[in-house]
Amino acid sequence: MDRLNRLQSLMEELGFTSFILTSNANIFYFTGFMGSGYLVVPLNGEYKLYVYPIDYEAAQTYCIQGVEIIKIKATSNIADIISNLPSNLKKKVGFDRLEAEQYLKVKDYVESINLSQDLVWRLRSIKDQEEIEKITKASEITSRCMELASDIIGEGVRESEVKAQILEEMIESGSDKPAFDLIVVSGERSSLPHGGIGDRTMGRGDVVIVDIGASYQGYCADMTRTFYIGSNPPDEVLNIYNLILDTKNLVEENTKSWILASSLDEVARTIITSKGYGEYFVHGLGHGIGIEIHEPPKINPASQEILQENNVITIEPGIYIPKKFGVRIEDTLVVGRDNVVKLTSYSYDLAVY
Amino acid sequence: MDRLNRLQSLMEELGFTSFILTSNANIFYFTGFMGSGYLVVPLNGEYKLYVYPIDYEAAQTYCIQGVEIIKIKATSNIADIISNLPSNLKKKVGFDRLEAEQYLKVKDYVESINLSQDLVWRLRSIKDQEEIEKITKASEITSRCMELASDIIGEGVRESEVKAQILEEMIESGSDKPAFDLIVVSGERSSLPHGGIGDRTMGRGDVVIVDIGASYQGYCADMTRTFYIGSNPPDEVLNIYNLILDTKNLVEENTKSWILASSLDEVARTIITSKGYGEYFVHGLGHGIGIEIHEPPKINPASQEILQENNVITIEPGIYIPKKFGVRIEDTLVVGRDNVVKLTSYSYDLAVY
Repeated sequence: MDRLNRLQSLMEELGFTSFILTSNANIFYFTGFMGSGYLVVPLNGEYKLYVYPIDYEAAQTYCIQGVEIIKIKATSNIADIISNLPSNLKKKVGFDRLEAEQYLKVKDYVESINLSQDLVWRLRSIKDQEEIEKITKASEITSRCMELASDIIGEGVRESEVKAQILEEMIESGSDKPAFDLIVVSGERSSLPHGGIGDRTMGRGDVVIVDIGASYQGYCADMTRTFYIGSNPPDEVLNIYNLILDTKNLVEENTKSWILASSLDEVARTIITSKGYGEYFVHGLGHGIGIEIHEPPKINPASQEILQENNVITIEPGIYIPKKFGVRIEDTLVVGRDNVVKLTSYSYDLAVY
Repeated sequence: MDRLNRLQSLMEELGFTSFILTSNANIFYFTGFMGSGYLVVPLNGEYKLYVYPIDYEAAQTYCIQGVEIIKIKATSNIADIISNLPSNLKKKVGFDRLEAEQYLKVKDYVESINLSQDLVWRLRSIKDQEEIEKITKASEITSRCMELASDIIGEGVRESEVKAQILEEMIESGSDKPAFDLIVVSGERSSLPHGGIGDRTMGRGDVVIVDIGASYQGYCADMTRTFYIGSNPPDEVLNIYNLILDTKNLVEENTKSWILASSLDEVARTIITSKGYGEYFVHGLGHGIGIEIHEPPKINPASQEILQENNVITIEPGIYIPKKFGVRIEDTLVVGRDNVVKLTSYSYDLAVY
């Protein structure tokens, strides 16, 4: 209920008469129910969660006390709900996410429509103790899976075998599900940050990127390690690896509350560019993480955000040499007042054999 | 290229000067590239795929010939792309999916904006031979996993153990990833169609629902079986199980091209209601399936669609008795001219022991 009260305080600041949440992740954040529906939060008065018949029992099971749960017809849509709201709620209405079709359907039913996902991010991006505990647990499971990955990886092993073993370990360790599609890419495939459909048998001399994350009670972790199969990585691999590791360490030493997120990206990009690899660092330095795998604060050149205590973020510099190999190292971290605390942990040794 | 040509034919029918695709699944369908970007299809002229730096190499690797791949800045958005299109393309522009924010950003850059995801569904809902082969492979892997599930399920086994083993088997068998979050729910949890976060140790006398699907080269399968742990299911379980199985068989016998999808739902709902369980059949009878787990044609009371040859669909009647148990049986099927062909297959025996 605290979270809903905080939303109402923000609504009051902005003069909203009601706020309507349509995103599953937001509804989960405010009610504990994970499924689809519409949550109506008036400035004053009763909270109402509208759900379809398929989710009605689950909503009754998981939704917090103090929210009225209303079963709607399978054929109902958001316009049906909004058109039936009392008119005092329809003066200045905030929404989190709307599809264009939904927007066109509902805009004539309210006096003023305000797309205000940012308002919810102001709450969700600062994690409370319970959330940090869940992400910590997700991170521990993820770290254990990374250790397993490093044990399995080797000559003659398929990428898919590593994924299969990690998934099994993840769920056996108490994860609800993987937080995203696991990435295990080797050889020249490691130069694709997202991997892509395919499978490959690893060989001696391969670089292997493992990017994995568990979800625990609805909260995600995210972690990447880069390995080299063999005892003597070539200089090019070693140099890039050390550059990425040094960059990550330096960024993390400088990460704390009240820092501009874009300045961290700039530090990393400046170092990597000074060594001639700027054009191969093809993504942002990191991102917030929580119920969703990518949340604010973004940590990239265009980010407008200032880091706050209890943001949970990833730092993940990477260099990708097309058709050759890629290197990425990533951990999940909590931003403290004057430092960061790492939630994922596993050795940064490059060579496995 | 055939698929893009077919889209252009539909565009010509409707007088569209261009069509802009933003959905990852649609871009994959038309280009073979799975990632985010914007695909611009002019009525005449060059196809252009705009991708961010992070996906540029993957787009070059996976995108079909004949589509120009353009790297855009990480900070670019859809409005930047549309504002730079030649004006003859901006007269009547179709879009697949747009967020409300995107809609508001782009609407002033084009003469006429048309939200026309339906146009793409007219193509995607009818699968070609290559797509049916991939869904068949996904279905075979899924069926094998269901056999494994029925072997593992028993007294003292946790739901999570079953999920973990299935995930391992799925990936080892060549699946890219699970097609959705696997559902293994037992006892009173089986009355929640989507399960929900949690884990439970199964006991004798439990009903267990296993709803799983593999993705193979980007295509999904979907399959559900219901089991009873023990050799003598109580009458209530047995009666509901047989009702669901009979309903499913009857529906499948009547499924073929040129049938109204809603009429199949009506047949199932009428039978189930006549036995007194109508209010417990809390979801639609089925759905189309392909690159996404839920696609048109919808098979529910509100569906306006007529089944076509080479639709791939699921049929999944279910009954859920709150706080007691649920029963659902589901297969993935291809619609033929005069029949359906089942792609998933595993025994319909209720009792496991």
